[in-house]
Amino acid sequence: MATPFEELLAFQRDTVALSEVSGLVSWDQETMMPRGAAAQRAEWLAALEGVLHDRRTDPRVGDWIAATDPAALNAAEQAQLRLIRRVHERAVRVPARLASEIARVTSRAQGVWAEARAKDDFAAFAPVLDEVVRLRREEAAALSNGGDAYDALLDDYEPGMTGAELQALFGRLRERLVALRDRILGSAVRPPALDHTFPEAAQLGLARELATAFGYDWSKGRLDRSVHPFTSGNGADVRITTRVSERDPFNCVYSTIHEVGHGAYEQGIDPAFALTVLGRGVSMGVHESQSRIYENQLGRSRPFTGWLFGRMRAVFGDFGIADADAFYACVNRVGQGYIRTEADEVQYNLHVLLRFDLERALIAGDLAATDLEEAWNTRFAADFGFHVDRPSNGVLQDVHWSVGLFGYFPTYTLGNVYAGCLDAAMRREVPGLDAALAAGDAGPAAAWLREKVQRHGGLYPPREVIEAACGHAPHEDPLLDYLDAKFGAIYGV
Amino acid sequence: MATPFEELLAFQRDTVALSEVSGLVSWDQETMMPRGAAAQRAEWLAALEGVLHDRRTDPRVGDWIAATDPAALNAAEQAQLRLIRRVHERAVRVPARLASEIARVTSRAQGVWAEARAKDDFAAFAPVLDEVVRLRREEAAALSNGGDAYDALLDDYEPGMTGAELQALFGRLRERLVALRDRILGSAVRPPALDHTFPEAAQLGLARELATAFGYDWSKGRLDRSVHPFTSGNGADVRITTRVSERDPFNCVYSTIHEVGHGAYEQGIDPAFALTVLGRGVSMGVHESQSRIYENQLGRSRPFTGWLFGRMRAVFGDFGIADADAFYACVNRVGQGYIRTEADEVQYNLHVLLRFDLERALIAGDLAATDLEEAWNTRFAADFGFHVDRPSNGVLQDVHWSVGLFGYFPTYTLGNVYAGCLDAAMRREVPGLDAALAAGDAGPAAAWLREKVQRHGGLYPPREVIEAACGHAPHEDPLLDYLDAKFGAIYGV
Repeated sequence: MATPFEELLAFQRDTVALSEVSGLVSWDQETMMPRGAAAQRAEWLAALEGVLHDRRTDPRVGDWIAATDPAALNAAEQAQLRLIRRVHERAVRVPARLASEIARVTSRAQGVWAEARAKDDFAAFAPVLDEVVRLRREEAAALSNGGDAYDALLDDYEPGMTGAELQALFGRLRERLVALRDRILGSAVRPPALDHTFPEAAQLGLARELATAFGYDWSKGRLDRSVHPFTSGNGADVRITTRVSERDPFNCVYSTIHEVGHGAYEQGIDPAFALTVLGRGVSMGVHESQSRIYENQLGRSRPFTGWLFGRMRAVFGDFGIADADAFYACVNRVGQGYIRTEADEVQYNLHVLLRFDLERALIAGDLAATDLEEAWNTRFAADFGFHVDRPSNGVLQDVHWSVGLFGYFPTYTLGNVYAGCLDAAMRREVPGLDAALAAGDAGPAAAWLREKVQRHGGLYPPREVIEAACGHAPHEDPLLDYLDAKFGAIYGV
Repeated sequence: MATPFEELLAFQRDTVALSEVSGLVSWDQETMMPRGAAAQRAEWLAALEGVLHDRRTDPRVGDWIAATDPAALNAAEQAQLRLIRRVHERAVRVPARLASEIARVTSRAQGVWAEARAKDDFAAFAPVLDEVVRLRREEAAALSNGGDAYDALLDDYEPGMTGAELQALFGRLRERLVALRDRILGSAVRPPALDHTFPEAAQLGLARELATAFGYDWSKGRLDRSVHPFTSGNGADVRITTRVSERDPFNCVYSTIHEVGHGAYEQGIDPAFALTVLGRGVSMGVHESQSRIYENQLGRSRPFTGWLFGRMRAVFGDFGIADADAFYACVNRVGQGYIRTEADEVQYNLHVLLRFDLERALIAGDLAATDLEEAWNTRFAADFGFHVDRPSNGVLQDVHWSVGLFGYFPTYTLGNVYAGCLDAAMRREVPGLDAALAAGDAGPAAAWLREKVQRHGGLYPPREVIEAACGHAPHEDPLLDYLDAKFGAIYGV
């Protein structure tokens, strides 16, 4: 006779499996699907979402939880109970009518956004954005039980984090980032830029080599191309994608290393957690900490770029960069740009902070969707010192808001902050890290991250994971100190 | 307020979508899945099967059907009601305990079979085969309501067909096939064989060209490689696979054309039937009629092989076949062989007839699983005139029985009989067919088949589809007359 908790886990196992199936269907949509199948695919995903919604809100889940005494469970079981309860309680708070309207409107809004961006016409997007904001505010009200609306949304991506805490953190971050950026842009140092053509097939070969160097397990994953790079999957099937631009090999190189970071996290989770709620990355912030530390603190480091320079010379021949020092400066060039996803390490977080403040104002009801473009442009000029030339370089550049993602952007910067903390701790604890990186081997770093962060999956709350790994609460100083030192040296400031 | 029938269709739409998702997950397993993900994939498929089983047996389906008056429906709606009822009634007749045991045992049996085949050890397979037979007999008893057990299983693959009818048909077929085979093997004519290496990439390029020549719609499909070629999907997402052997390009060529026939059927179904039970091929026999007429009556015809010879000369250079007539004879060589899937058009059906009689005896309880190897070898020697040398060339060559497929084999030959009828009718009705084929254009043939067969999907029962297309009830004579004429000419007999 199964206990209620055993029945809960058995039910949950199929729910996790079905949610992983949904992930595969989405992966296939971006990589393999014939172009004529889009409408049919939307029906598949909607049918799966219907099944998953029914399972998340199934009254038996509540009954099994209520009949389970947490004191009788071990730590991993308690963590499972906590996560299952959290998802169940959130799901039952949102009326089915609202959940289905959000799905319908965001699906439409994404199409409207894509067209508005192509036509550089914010006014064409504003009405549907207004609808999306209205629906997500309604959802936040249902979720928050009278608490802060933005926090209720944020909690989906970074459990336990609040907007107020982020605001304080981001305020401190912004001050020092702006100061560093101003010093860099005032410097006379001008790192070289690439001006060469890099064949696609050779870039993809290099991408596979990089994934291997960073410990990506090919027996549990694969690498394909997609318009926007992403990572998909859990457990023994974690797939990454990359993209290739013939004039900009760093796009492929650093997209690949970034996604390998996400992929390594999922691949590194304790296999005992497979097909349970513990068997996936614990939050978007912790996830991004892995992708960013792989990409930046490791992949854009002087030792690793020294090895990469040699490999790129071997693969592509002379591409106009004199030596490894010039290559390192080239990889880490800081320049003016409108686009978040193309930003350097110094300015990236300023892009995120702008979005955080604007989306909080939208959800608080302090900013109307129709006024968003003006608010964006004003803030951008103040933060970056030059003016947005058109909406596709400004308020329309990201897909997130059109698909209803509010509370998601700040996890990018939180991930960078976590990565800063982890990097400092790792450098204290792992001898020979730089020597290995200089030989193209990120293995020691990857092993430390797997041990300290990745293997835990959802076992501990995000903040606890970072604290346990670093020995202190998450803090912005390590990131800022790292950036000051690194870019100070490159730019002589 | 939705009518019960409208509620039924809405529910059914998601069921179809989820079943198509399951098809994608299986396709991915054979083409894209990392090798380490097999166990996880089995859990995904089991979870999906659980959802689908719950939906097929959902009591609301029975209620909605009972509350619907067929007289108030149009023809397409009546066909939907008929098919939905059929699936529901069959599903509820099988106890959940039995369905789950069949899934569990056949999953294990497939592994045991693969190992037994690799070791050429039938005795290692016999016990689990005995279990599979026992379970399928139990299922057949539940399904048949006291009727014939084999018919109950056959009905899953070829609705409306009976074992007795097939036995009569196959008896007539066997007599003339054996006579033709004996004339051919007694002839002094010896068509040339290939002895050359054909690079893989060039074969795959030719495969794409062939798919295009046969009207495969690339906007709704794709071509990949797999160990065993197959077709997967419905509606706007119908995928085919092929395989490549450097020493035998006909493997790739005719596997591709065969799967294009299956794929064209699915792609050719009226788009109005998408995401309904009408939106897929109506039976395995009709499905096989499309793949076989593409492969044989069209793809192995003198006009088309004339064009193919020119293309292969252009792609591969001189490969040792003197001219188009010699190439045609080479493509259609009749030889001695153990393996069904490698058999020529004349002997293929003899392989199937052997399996049909043996599996009927197994299901009837007249043959024990432990005695199957001896029964196979005795029958093979009688039918083919030489002896099976080892189980992997005999009773262990096909996967079907290990996964519980009883009643499936005869649909292969039924498909050939249907293809013979369709070919005769098509040649009467389509002027210029051979001239187009000689120019590498199967378009006129494909258009006739789409109009007469493919577009109907599940609208009419299988026998009605063939009758309406050919103007007469399915009959073996057209196939036999075609084979007599074709091989009589090649072999001068």
